Amino acid sequence: MKDAKVRLFVEHPLGEGQTIPLERDQAHYLFGVMRLGVGDFVELFNGHDGAWRCEVVQAGKRAGVLACEAQVKPLQMPPDLWLLFAPIKKARTDFIVEKAAEMGAARIMPVQTVFTNSERIRQDRLQAHAVEAAEQCGGTYVPEVTALQKLDRVLADWPEGRQLMFCDEAEVGSSSALSGVFASEAAREGQGAGPWAILIGPEGGFSPEERARLKALPFAHIVSLGPRILRADTAAVAAMTLWQQALGDWR
Amino acid sequence: MKDAKVRLFVEHPLGEGQTIPLERDQAHYLFGVMRLGVGDFVELFNGHDGAWRCEVVQAGKRAGVLACEAQVKPLQMPPDLWLLFAPIKKARTDFIVEKAAEMGAARIMPVQTVFTNSERIRQDRLQAHAVEAAEQCGGTYVPEVTALQKLDRVLADWPEGRQLMFCDEAEVGSSSALSGVFASEAAREGQGAGPWAILIGPEGGFSPEERARLKALPFAHIVSLGPRILRADTAAVAAMTLWQQALGDWR
Repeated sequence: MKDAKVRLFVEHPLGEGQTIPLERDQAHYLFGVMRLGVGDFVELFNGHDGAWRCEVVQAGKRAGVLACEAQVKPLQMPPDLWLLFAPIKKARTDFIVEKAAEMGAARIMPVQTVFTNSERIRQDRLQAHAVEAAEQCGGTYVPEVTALQKLDRVLADWPEGRQLMFCDEAEVGSSSALSGVFASEAAREGQGAGPWAILIGPEGGFSPEERARLKALPFAHIVSLGPRILRADTAAVAAMTLWQQALGDWR
Repeated sequence: MKDAKVRLFVEHPLGEGQTIPLERDQAHYLFGVMRLGVGDFVELFNGHDGAWRCEVVQAGKRAGVLACEAQVKPLQMPPDLWLLFAPIKKARTDFIVEKAAEMGAARIMPVQTVFTNSERIRQDRLQAHAVEAAEQCGGTYVPEVTALQKLDRVLADWPEGRQLMFCDEAEVGSSSALSGVFASEAAREGQGAGPWAILIGPEGGFSPEERARLKALPFAHIVSLGPRILRADTAAVAAMTLWQQALGDWR
């Protein structure tokens, strides 16, 4: 049995007996770039039906058809973890989205803080980065990238019961250990972590007013990420690592 | 007292009464790019003497002199942690070096594995990235970037007493939890971790022979980084996070 070397996200349902028509870009990628042809295998996932090994049954320059052969992986939902971050320079914003998808965030939320430089983001482009990261990391789920929202507004509409882990560079070198934050959490008893979010501040840090507001929130937990100041993209991976290991699907 | 907004790594000794002549590039950066002038302050560090608040006493287009005013931070050495990684595409290799410096590696070692694409690296350019990352993260120490060496050779010359944490994508989704790896370590008793290294595999994974050899090493500990396959740069940050939190200076 030949291995499927290429993974592709599709919108189409996947299941026993399903055939999947390809969009033009996907046909170009599979048959033009990757040089696949009829009889080759591709792994497809759509965020709902797990991952399926599919056979190429028609291959053209602008179109093609795949046929589902067997499910190779069930749907694996990430934990209910949101990543909120203040957009930074283009390349690093792209990295944060890619990393969030790899690390297993369920939702990626760009937020505008007082010190955020970006006034807008290309939501469609960031969503495409999340798809590509899911394809590459073997995931069966693609996190949603939401539109840019003001942090104030997001906090005002905060859903009941969702905890917030908030990484503040003003806490660099402080002793607030993660273990303390999580000690009282359900994780200890082997229960699910419940809904959480991680908030990564902008390069310039939070404003004094934002910091005061965040600290006063009953659902917020301040976490220190060591004695050095991390760039936002490094901080996002580090914070998600701590969370996944303590409460998420790395346990 | 005006704050020093710019941090700069210099080779020159720092201390009470020291004056530091600037190199041409540094003078251009401080006075041309950052628009500093006589009377402004800069934070200097050299990897030995901690960080010093220094005053600009001469500023020219191609030269300048700073004078040490006061030590603002003692030297903070990172833990004795090496990061070994197989170089990948240019931008991601740069990122790994930057991240290793931010995360507090003491030494950064590019290694050539069977599936490594790169035959050579620009050691000087990578070292410059490590300097820049140390400047930006508030560190007082710059990790050394070594020349590219063959993994085989590095393992053959492995120093006695140094532990190796080895992150293998073939272990994705396995249950080898980090807590098990570290349970027997001195960290539990509050002692220092001793010398360690982290090895991140290349994009194509390790060869079967490499994997067998690594697994057989008495000083090697296999660690899983969750159920998704992480890119090498993501894996480097995640692995260093786990290590720093369990054994390093994030405790």
